[in-house]
Amino acid sequence: MSEQTKANFHGQGLITESCENAKELYNQSRYGLLQEDGKLRLSLVEGLYLLEKAKIDIFDKRKHKLNFDEYLKKASKHDPNFWIRYVVFKDLRNRGYIVKTALKFGADFRVYDRGVKPGEDHAKWVVYPVHEGSSLTWYEFAAKNRVAHSTKKRLLLAVVDDEADVSFWECRWIRP
Amino acid sequence: MSEQTKANFHGQGLITESCENAKELYNQSRYGLLQEDGKLRLSLVEGLYLLEKAKIDIFDKRKHKLNFDEYLKKASKHDPNFWIRYVVFKDLRNRGYIVKTALKFGADFRVYDRGVKPGEDHAKWVVYPVHEGSSLTWYEFAAKNRVAHSTKKRLLLAVVDDEADVSFWECRWIRP
Amino acid sequence: MSEQTKANFHGQGLITESCENAKELYNQSRYGLLQEDGKLRLSLVEGLYLLEKAKIDIFDKRKHKLNFDEYLKKASKHDPNFWIRYVVFKDLRNRGYIVKTALKFGADFRVYDRGVKPGEDHAKWVVYPVHEGSSLTWYEFAAKNRVAHSTKKRLLLAVVDDEADVSFWECRWIRP
Amino acid sequence: MSEQTKANFHGQGLITESCENAKELYNQSRYGLLQEDGKLRLSLVEGLYLLEKAKIDIFDKRKHKLNFDEYLKKASKHDPNFWIRYVVFKDLRNRGYIVKTALKFGADFRVYDRGVKPGEDHAKWVVYPVHEGSSLTWYEFAAKNRVAHSTKKRLLLAVVDDEADVSFWECRWIRP
Repeated sequence: MSEQTKANFHGQGLITESCENAKELYNQSRYGLLQEDGKLRLSLVEGLYLLEKAKIDIFDKRKHKLNFDEYLKKASKHDPNFWIRYVVFKDLRNRGYIVKTALKFGADFRVYDRGVKPGEDHAKWVVYPVHEGSSLTWYEFAAKNRVAHSTKKRLLLAVVDDEADVSFWECRWIRP
Repeated sequence: MSEQTKANFHGQGLITESCENAKELYNQSRYGLLQEDGKLRLSLVEGLYLLEKAKIDIFDKRKHKLNFDEYLKKASKHDPNFWIRYVVFKDLRNRGYIVKTALKFGADFRVYDRGVKPGEDHAKWVVYPVHEGSSLTWYEFAAKNRVAHSTKKRLLLAVVDDEADVSFWECRWIRP
Repeated sequence: MSEQTKANFHGQGLITESCENAKELYNQSRYGLLQEDGKLRLSLVEGLYLLEKAKIDIFDKRKHKLNFDEYLKKASKHDPNFWIRYVVFKDLRNRGYIVKTALKFGADFRVYDRGVKPGEDHAKWVVYPVHEGSSLTWYEFAAKNRVAHSTKKRLLLAVVDDEADVSFWECRWIRP
Repeated sequence: MSEQTKANFHGQGLITESCENAKELYNQSRYGLLQEDGKLRLSLVEGLYLLEKAKIDIFDKRKHKLNFDEYLKKASKHDPNFWIRYVVFKDLRNRGYIVKTALKFGADFRVYDRGVKPGEDHAKWVVYPVHEGSSLTWYEFAAKNRVAHSTKKRLLLAVVDDEADVSFWECRWIRP
């Protein structure tokens, strides 16, 4: 029987205890970043995803165990766009993709092709999650495409509707 | 007597508490998306509509109860076109229609015929809410009609005037 | 063998000679307005249509016989939108519809259902021919619909593209 | 040596004289629409392009020969978006593509692959020319993609900057 891994919430992410389960989350599905001390450092979206899947228990600083809503509220304080990003992360993870942050590429996420683990090959897409109600200037659109082009990835626009459904559009800059 | 359902505002939508009222809002009138944990996930337009009808109480992250104006201001930050969309949503809901998002069809809303619930039958219309002061190229007009035609729905143009009255026009492409 | 009917061009229209052919153009297909003196009064679009069909010969004030381009140039001087209106008139006439002016209804044309002659029944559509490159305010759109609604006809928007192809959209004001 | 073909400007387009050059413009590069009388009917964007290439001379109703600026001013009166559309048309024509109107598909232009003539095969892209300063809702973006998808063409967004440079992005809806 597998106990749930404990993790502590701290502002920008989580740190789990050091245990076999934590190691497996990293080795099998590349959740988080495995530290040398055996603890797993998880991002905010990874945390909620594993909470919803009942893979981890999450505690705040006062040792209070967080439920879904409490977590969502806390995470949204740190990242006003957290919900939209989470919906897209979840959608792609549920489809079998490994999704990692892409801050250093100037995007929200990078996504690896099915069966590919980070490090084995380059990411396939950089992903921008947005809410259907927002709008876009062509300057922003061009910037997103440039980021993808310059990192040799494809641009994936992930638009979240009010029912938390995600529509995906792949774009690329071309010289016709 | 029925207490008002509590809901938490988070950026792009709301989540209610799990209770009988929440379940009824979904089962009877298809507001939101009922989660497995019994909580109801509401869109921004649904939230304001139920607030105005005094069906729910909405709280921000700091446990402050939002009134109509505070909500409108918050929602408009996330969606610059929120007011126009809300006016059309409200008008159609008041007439007894179920109105859901239609981003994946390339429109703002899809509307079901009276007495029809999503899932039971196809939507009747795709709806484009616009402000009377805006204008339209014929390419845009043709594109909206093509969207409706290709999804086998009718096109409903909803033009909102400065008194928040809505005029509706149904259009279709024909070969005379 | 039937000689071509002679017609004189005068600014806003044409007047034919009085002859059997002229009478037939009116009786069979409702071109123009048959005067008591047996002459046929034709509109500018009717004139070019019958010229293109080689049913009439048209002469200017100096007794010069006009060809297609000369006529088009002359007519466009009186009506800057002549070409667009002509393309739509021709398209509908070629499809077997009788097309008459609708100035008194506040539109360009009124169109009778196939097999119906003016006088026998009401027109089916009021038609607005426009060029694809132009644009439209919602006030103009509303006005066109109001005209159709108040005259108990349907609104037909006829958009002409750069290849002189016409796309038709039927619109109606509804209370959903 | 080849004389320049004469063409007459009338509101929404041009008509050339009937001559070998006119025929060649159509047969070799599919400019305009060749009429039965040997005259070529050109669209507004085609007209300016051929004027700039010194292939035709264009005259207004008063027999005045139009230069580039006079033409641009006249055409912009009929189509407020003429300049943006012209820049994109020119860019694509210069790259060797045949570009025709696409109103009936719900877009501005359709573009054929290199070496393909209209009629021989389907168009490759539907094109939307926009100015870099404008912005876009996700509903509009979704609608443009839906139009392309439903006509089995690819979507090409052509964004024109203030120096009349065009950037192209190809987009498509995907299920990842």
